[in-house]
Amino acid sequence: MNLNVKNDIAGKEILYVIKIGGNVIDDDEALQSFLQKFSIIKARKILVHGGGKIATKIGDKLDIVSEYINGRRITNNETIDLVTMVYAGLINKKITASLQALKCSAIGLCGADANLIPATKRPAEPIDFGWVGDVIADDLKVDSWKIFLENNLVPIIAPLTHDGQSHLLNTNADTMAGVIAMALQQNYNVRLIYCFEKQGILENIENENSIIAEMNSATYSQLKSEQKLFAGILPKLENALSAARAGVTDVRIGHSNDLEILIYAERGTKILA
Amino acid sequence: MNLNVKNDIAGKEILYVIKIGGNVIDDDEALQSFLQKFSIIKARKILVHGGGKIATKIGDKLDIVSEYINGRRITNNETIDLVTMVYAGLINKKITASLQALKCSAIGLCGADANLIPATKRPAEPIDFGWVGDVIADDLKVDSWKIFLENNLVPIIAPLTHDGQSHLLNTNADTMAGVIAMALQQNYNVRLIYCFEKQGILENIENENSIIAEMNSATYSQLKSEQKLFAGILPKLENALSAARAGVTDVRIGHSNDLEILIYAERGTKILA
Repeated sequence: MNLNVKNDIAGKEILYVIKIGGNVIDDDEALQSFLQKFSIIKARKILVHGGGKIATKIGDKLDIVSEYINGRRITNNETIDLVTMVYAGLINKKITASLQALKCSAIGLCGADANLIPATKRPAEPIDFGWVGDVIADDLKVDSWKIFLENNLVPIIAPLTHDGQSHLLNTNADTMAGVIAMALQQNYNVRLIYCFEKQGILENIENENSIIAEMNSATYSQLKSEQKLFAGILPKLENALSAARAGVTDVRIGHSNDLEILIYAERGTKILA
Repeated sequence: MNLNVKNDIAGKEILYVIKIGGNVIDDDEALQSFLQKFSIIKARKILVHGGGKIATKIGDKLDIVSEYINGRRITNNETIDLVTMVYAGLINKKITASLQALKCSAIGLCGADANLIPATKRPAEPIDFGWVGDVIADDLKVDSWKIFLENNLVPIIAPLTHDGQSHLLNTNADTMAGVIAMALQQNYNVRLIYCFEKQGILENIENENSIIAEMNSATYSQLKSEQKLFAGILPKLENALSAARAGVTDVRIGHSNDLEILIYAERGTKILA
């Protein structure tokens, strides 16, 4: 297959911002297959990865007590150390070493490195989630990212940011991918691809083939009000819609197994403003 | 204090390659003090860090069984994951976030990132040390390092390399610092500083003030044969001597507390070819 899709018609170079989540991270065979496909994309590219279940497993062994408020995990002092180790260490460097073996010059980073993704600690009110970061989207510097992209390095981004006051912050990887895509759209034609465990957003959650080809804010609101979308997908869709509204060239949600097709914008659910 | 020491007389820019070990990593106050001094060095710089005792502590909690041969630890599958987490994740990113807070644009990396430090797995004969890397010094690419240095980014290097076949390798941080210094001497006037827990190499291990001002291969051999050097310092000294022989501008061993003086080559033990 020819994956040589370096320039599109508008003149700006194509940049893929691709996000993978726990379903790929937790399955070594799926991950290696994904990385192989990722490695041969002949265009500038960034990979943002989530965490997966490894952190929970290691946390249990380390007797790190997870605290929850309203069902949501709190990132306490021990937990931020845990996710820093697992996300920015174990997962990030394994992906990097695997891509290097595939002749893709990966560089494993998090939001603190080169101050790539400035953030603030989420306010303690109404709920104190601990060391969780809210990205300051306007503070992403295109020039910092260009240092890597223009030197043919492929940033592999772990879901951590920092507050500029020496604290690392646990940060949603979907949000990070969206914010990176929006910032870099200034200089590139960004194609943002969210990979997950379905072939797209499903009209009927029980029918894997009921893929919605396109979705915009209106259809999102409608499906949400009809409770047709499962709760877990809502934040991802909201990040995708924000990116589409901000003018990202193509925003798409699909299955991580389909990467070689998704990059041609030929599968998954396309998200429109 | 004026730390503006950007150029030296020979015209090439000064580059500091500074290595810190476990004694600083394990002591948060000492580390913060060191990083503050490091942050204000007004020259291009690279920090290479060791591991410290945190990995052992976490490994014990994770019931990772350490295997030893002839008193030397073997890096088995579980141990390489452990040190990847702790060195490239926890320690590396904490240093990076701390330096960012000090307005030093740090970027946390290991040898796999951007293929900065190619290595091979140490041969299994005569002793199989497991996932341990021997750096391929000739394969370090100055151009890869320049991407960071010329863009005013400060590489913070964790003691891991890779074999180009997707395996991460536990690697001696002293050796890595030496090899980086030797490779970059081509383009920079490199000042290599090994920081440790003494003010220099001691003539008499029981007298902290018996600092040897200068040491070369001959004095090294002599002191070694007289068994005046404690065993732990030998590999560090051999790395330092190799760097001096390779033409690194200044090679020096001193106390991490003295960084602001060491950078002026005014303390510690100077290592000569």
